[in-house]
Amino acid sequence: MIMHDDPGLAPLAVALGDPAGIGPEIVAKSWEARVRRRLPPFFAVGDERSLSAVWKGPINRIGTPFEAAAAFDHGLPLIQVDDPGEIIPGEPNIAGARCALDSLETAAGLTRSGVAAALVTAPVSKAQLYAIGFTHDGQTEFVAERCGIASANVAMMMVGPTLRTVPVTIHMPLSRVPQALTTDLIVARARTVSRGLQRDFGIPAPRLAMAGLNPHAGENGKMGTEERDVITPAVEILRAEGIDVIGPMAADTMFDPYARKGYDAAICMYHDQALIPLKMLHFDDGVNMTLGLPIIRTAPDHGTAFALAGRNAARADAMIAAICLAAECARRRQALGVLCCPSSS
Amino acid sequence: MIMHDDPGLAPLAVALGDPAGIGPEIVAKSWEARVRRRLPPFFAVGDERSLSAVWKGPINRIGTPFEAAAAFDHGLPLIQVDDPGEIIPGEPNIAGARCALDSLETAAGLTRSGVAAALVTAPVSKAQLYAIGFTHDGQTEFVAERCGIASANVAMMMVGPTLRTVPVTIHMPLSRVPQALTTDLIVARARTVSRGLQRDFGIPAPRLAMAGLNPHAGENGKMGTEERDVITPAVEILRAEGIDVIGPMAADTMFDPYARKGYDAAICMYHDQALIPLKMLHFDDGVNMTLGLPIIRTAPDHGTAFALAGRNAARADAMIAAICLAAECARRRQALGVLCCPSSS
Repeated sequence: MIMHDDPGLAPLAVALGDPAGIGPEIVAKSWEARVRRRLPPFFAVGDERSLSAVWKGPINRIGTPFEAAAAFDHGLPLIQVDDPGEIIPGEPNIAGARCALDSLETAAGLTRSGVAAALVTAPVSKAQLYAIGFTHDGQTEFVAERCGIASANVAMMMVGPTLRTVPVTIHMPLSRVPQALTTDLIVARARTVSRGLQRDFGIPAPRLAMAGLNPHAGENGKMGTEERDVITPAVEILRAEGIDVIGPMAADTMFDPYARKGYDAAICMYHDQALIPLKMLHFDDGVNMTLGLPIIRTAPDHGTAFALAGRNAARADAMIAAICLAAECARRRQALGVLCCPSSS
Repeated sequence: MIMHDDPGLAPLAVALGDPAGIGPEIVAKSWEARVRRRLPPFFAVGDERSLSAVWKGPINRIGTPFEAAAAFDHGLPLIQVDDPGEIIPGEPNIAGARCALDSLETAAGLTRSGVAAALVTAPVSKAQLYAIGFTHDGQTEFVAERCGIASANVAMMMVGPTLRTVPVTIHMPLSRVPQALTTDLIVARARTVSRGLQRDFGIPAPRLAMAGLNPHAGENGKMGTEERDVITPAVEILRAEGIDVIGPMAADTMFDPYARKGYDAAICMYHDQALIPLKMLHFDDGVNMTLGLPIIRTAPDHGTAFALAGRNAARADAMIAAICLAAECARRRQALGVLCCPSSS
């Protein structure tokens, strides 16, 4: 029997995501890596056939999270959701979307109730979810609502070993970004990030770097006014609250190796400003973490990759990193002070 | 005496840029590195005092470029422009701006006339230039006009050892980018890049990657329509002309190490989309090259760095890379087929 170094930690709930995507495969591969990567006990939530279609390893069906720790050493613990019918890897359909939503809802509920230490979510297909009437922007907003938190008060932080970035606006056309950016929104996101870095990352006085929106951060108003009218006022409010913020900074020079040493997280104005640098540095092991929730929630920073599904070709690095980060934050909240998962693989 | 491996190449003209910036220092340091980096003969164009204020090495004043090759081994050849008066490193002023513009005009003219093999430009301060009535967007547009080329028909390509990017729109507020992007403009830029890669980089069939504008390249119109209405039509026109183009691609995944192997240059929709990845990978040795001109023109991809000037703290890597790239392209145009400047330093 494997001795886990954190017997006090509840198991982690891992929603399998779209059953036709690579979620089941990367969760199974994470279980296979549990000893080498010193992963804490976790259980999958989803459909057994989506696992067995792509993986020949042992699956331990369980009824409640309380059985997960004992089952974990000998097979991947699974809480089965309603039978979705036949699942074909790589071929998303409506039944799969319902299964993905059931898995997310169940895993989120178990985590919210405290019987799971954290929620980790495999990728879903938004297009498929929209087709069954899903009205949220994505899993982040869904989980926020289930936790009773307005989505304006959560922040999506992309986390890699050498960079953390937070997009203030996310999934909207670039043409809508300038008007969507408000001082209030930037302040809200930055506050959430600062608190999250303190509570979940153990950084007593987080240093935030605020990106500009325009080339050269507007160059004193010559190439855009949002820095002067919207972003700088946000920086001033945050500083008045005692938060350590630099900026607005020219986005093209704030992610070079020298500049990155100067902050703990970069607050970015739009999706690609946050995601380009993160994916360049951490394409294989980037984690998407939701800050501002009563629960801990992480996810691998990639999509369903339907084209890869069923071919045993998906890399589990990002899912493993998401499990590690969730466990690390859960331990910190429990004040056990123990870190897991050395970053080497 | 040092034997240069390309006796047939005319010397390169290097404009010193703003005399109060780091331009003079990095040009002098490039001359010091001439043997180690196998740099071809070049001459500086600017003010002698801006060099002697920051550097104790030998300066060889010359009257014409024809004297440069013989002078190069024993000192930095310099063509003096009109005396600007006192220059203080780190303290830009109007006289310095006039000196920078004189240097650029002279160096560009000598290159255009064929007595210099290529034009390399050190950084200027746009704010200072605007103060003396400069009406161009930057040095690129000025040089294009002097060469009789409309600025719509040139392309600014950022070049590093592992990535080349081209911003279709450059120095404008982000809010203006969506309306400034047109199919015609994208097609014009991509054609210029394709021809430039053929002629100056020796790539017979250049592979271009076209970035999307919106998150996830618009995700089939759900997060923006410019991909469908503006960018994809440009891709189709280019393909019909036989140019190898992929895209529009999601910008956040097109710069990871795997994706970068699939193209020779990325065509980007706005400044930071092109500059964030380039500066992350090549902060110290990125080169800004103007394609579509009758002459070869390169520049280090950084600014005047007034705060560093006069402290012997500036790195010359990017200036050396700009000189190397200019020489490499000049040799290719001469069909000598000889490459210089091994990339290791």
